[in-house]
Amino acid sequence: MIQTDILIIGAGPTGLFTVFEAGLLKLRCHLIDALPQPGGQCSEIYPKKPIYDIPAYPEILAGDLTHKLMEQIKQFEPGFTLGERADTIEKQEDGSFIVTTNKGTKHQAPVVAIAGGLGSFEPRKPLLSNLADFEDNGVEYIIRDPEIYRDKKVVIAGGGDSALDWSIFLTDVASEVTLVHRRNEFRGALDSVEKVQELKNLGKINLITPAEVKGLIGKEKLTGVAIEKKGEDGFILDTDHFIPLFGLSPKLGPIGNWGLEIEKNAIKVNNSLDYQTNIPGIYAIGDVNTYPGKLKLILCGFHEATLMCQSAYKRIHPDKKYVMKYTTVGGVEGFDGTKKEAPKAVVKAIN
Amino acid sequence: MIQTDILIIGAGPTGLFTVFEAGLLKLRCHLIDALPQPGGQCSEIYPKKPIYDIPAYPEILAGDLTHKLMEQIKQFEPGFTLGERADTIEKQEDGSFIVTTNKGTKHQAPVVAIAGGLGSFEPRKPLLSNLADFEDNGVEYIIRDPEIYRDKKVVIAGGGDSALDWSIFLTDVASEVTLVHRRNEFRGALDSVEKVQELKNLGKINLITPAEVKGLIGKEKLTGVAIEKKGEDGFILDTDHFIPLFGLSPKLGPIGNWGLEIEKNAIKVNNSLDYQTNIPGIYAIGDVNTYPGKLKLILCGFHEATLMCQSAYKRIHPDKKYVMKYTTVGGVEGFDGTKKEAPKAVVKAIN
Repeated sequence: MIQTDILIIGAGPTGLFTVFEAGLLKLRCHLIDALPQPGGQCSEIYPKKPIYDIPAYPEILAGDLTHKLMEQIKQFEPGFTLGERADTIEKQEDGSFIVTTNKGTKHQAPVVAIAGGLGSFEPRKPLLSNLADFEDNGVEYIIRDPEIYRDKKVVIAGGGDSALDWSIFLTDVASEVTLVHRRNEFRGALDSVEKVQELKNLGKINLITPAEVKGLIGKEKLTGVAIEKKGEDGFILDTDHFIPLFGLSPKLGPIGNWGLEIEKNAIKVNNSLDYQTNIPGIYAIGDVNTYPGKLKLILCGFHEATLMCQSAYKRIHPDKKYVMKYTTVGGVEGFDGTKKEAPKAVVKAIN
Repeated sequence: MIQTDILIIGAGPTGLFTVFEAGLLKLRCHLIDALPQPGGQCSEIYPKKPIYDIPAYPEILAGDLTHKLMEQIKQFEPGFTLGERADTIEKQEDGSFIVTTNKGTKHQAPVVAIAGGLGSFEPRKPLLSNLADFEDNGVEYIIRDPEIYRDKKVVIAGGGDSALDWSIFLTDVASEVTLVHRRNEFRGALDSVEKVQELKNLGKINLITPAEVKGLIGKEKLTGVAIEKKGEDGFILDTDHFIPLFGLSPKLGPIGNWGLEIEKNAIKVNNSLDYQTNIPGIYAIGDVNTYPGKLKLILCGFHEATLMCQSAYKRIHPDKKYVMKYTTVGGVEGFDGTKKEAPKAVVKAIN
C-alpha cells in the first residue's frame, strides 16, 4: 500500500504544480496517471505545440512546460503510479481514502486531489471483432517502451502526427515498418510528412494507402493483419505487432462513479473557498472541475491547486496553525535536503 | 483624456498580466502606477531577489519576471501613466469611470481593475521641519532619472541596499557623493557593502557615520544639509541634492476613499464569480483584494485577472457572446499586427 499526504489523480500541469505547493506546507504527494509519463495532454497530445498564455512565458512548448514543472517539484520527491487508471475509492473509518487502480495498485491518503483534466485519455480503437483477444498481446494503442519492437515486424495504422512520428522512429528499431492509412493524404507537421516520404522512397517504410486493417490473425499472439487496399483484393501481411494510432479521447471514466456531483462531465466544487467537492477530503482542481465562471486554463489550475493545498493542510493538521512565508523571504526547503534561498543580506561596518 | 477599455490601477505583475488576458478578448488596457517604472514591488523593492513559486519557473528573479511579462503583453500595446498616483474616481452617466491622478491626468474607461498590490509605495521620510519646502527642489525620495545628478553634489542617507547601490551608481555621475548613515553598519548584499568600502577608500564616496542629517538649508532651492555626527559638533555640508533612501512603505491611500468595501486594508471582492467589488464595473485583483481563503501570491493574481477579464468583456459587450479559444489552437493576434501561432499541420499525400 502506497501512503502519502495528498494523493493526486492526474499528472498534468495542475497535478504536478500541486506537489510544489504541498511541499511548501511540508505535505508529501503521490500522483496516479493513466498515461505512461507525466505531463498529461501537454506531453501526450501536443508536446511540441506552443502555449502563449502561461504567465511570464511569452511562448513555451507544452512539453517544456512539463519539464519545467518536473524540475520545480523534484525537490519534493513526488511518487508516481503511471500507466494505471484510478478506478475505485473507499473511505476508511479514520477518514482517509484508499484508491485502487485498474492494475490493483492501492494508495492511501487523508486527502485526494482530482486533477484529472478532461479525464483519462483512452485510445480510439478500430472496430475489429477479435481486437480484445490481442490487446497487449500484439496490439498496442500507446507506445510505452519502443524496445519491445526491436527487430520485430510492426504495422502502424493512422494518418496523423503520432502515426507519422512513430513510423519514423521505429525504422531504427523494428525489422520492418508498415504504415497503413485509409487516405493517401496525411495530416501532420510538414517535416514529419516529408521524412516519411523520404523513408518510403528509401524502402525503409512500407506504405500502404488508401487501405485499412480489416482483420487480426493469430492464435494467442498476433501473427498477421488482413489489409484491404481500395480497389484491390484483400491480403494478409505477417506482423508481430499492430499499433493503431487513431488518437486519444478523454473520458471522465470511473471517477464518474465515485459519488461526486457531476455537471457537464466535470466535477462541481466550492470555488468560493477551497475547490472541495461534495465529499469532504476530496478536491477537484484544473480542467476536471466546474464552477460559475470556470475557465479551463492551466493558469487557473495553478491557483486552484494552491488554495486547495491550504485547505488540505488544515484537514491533515487541524491543530496546527500555518503561517505562510513568501519563498522570496523564507526560501524553499526540499524533502531531499536541498535548500534554495535568496542570497542573505549582510550587516557589515564600513570603516 | 486618456480613454481605454480596462483602466488598470497598478502595474505590478497582476496588472501587467491583465493586459494579456484582456488582449485575447480584444480589449485595450491602460495602467497607472505611482512608481516610475512597471513591475510594482518586483521592480522597485526586490528586483534581484529570486521567486520560487511562479509556476514552471523553478527560480526567477523578480526583475526578470517583470521583463517577461512586459514581453508577453507588448503585442497588446498597453498605455502607461507612470509616476502618478490614482487619486479620485467619478462615475459618469454612461456608466464609465473617470480616474484622475495626483498630477491631474484624466483617464476614462467602462471598467476599472484595481491591481494595486499592497498600495502605492510611499517613501519613508525623515523628520525635518522644512522638508516639504525642498521636495522636488533638491530633495528626492526616489531616483527617477539619474541624469539630473550629473556633475552635482549629492548627499544620500540610509543604510540599506538602495542607499548603497545608488551611492555606487552615482559616483560615475555626480561630482561628489556623500553617504550618511546613523550606524557604522550597513545592511545589504555583500558585494554592495564591499564596493562602497572600496569607493570610500579611493575617496570616491565621502562616508559620514554614525551620523544623521538634521537640517535642510537653502532659499527656494537646497544648498546644504546640517549633519550631526555622533560625539562631534554639527556641521554644514554644501550639496545640490539630498536623497533620503529610508525605504518605501505601501499605503492603500486615496483608493480607500472610493466607496469600496475595505477589510483589513484590502478590498473585498466576490471571489465566487469575477473578483468584482461592491461597485459594479470596479474589480480588485491580486494582493489588493481579500476574500475567504485569499493568498497574497502572484500566481493567484494571474488567475483573478483572467476571470476578471471575462466578466469585463460581458460588461463592455453585453450583446456579444465570447467563445474562448485556446492560444495553442487559435494563436494570439496582437494589436500591433503581429500574430503568433503554432506551426500549422499540413495535409499532404505521400506517394
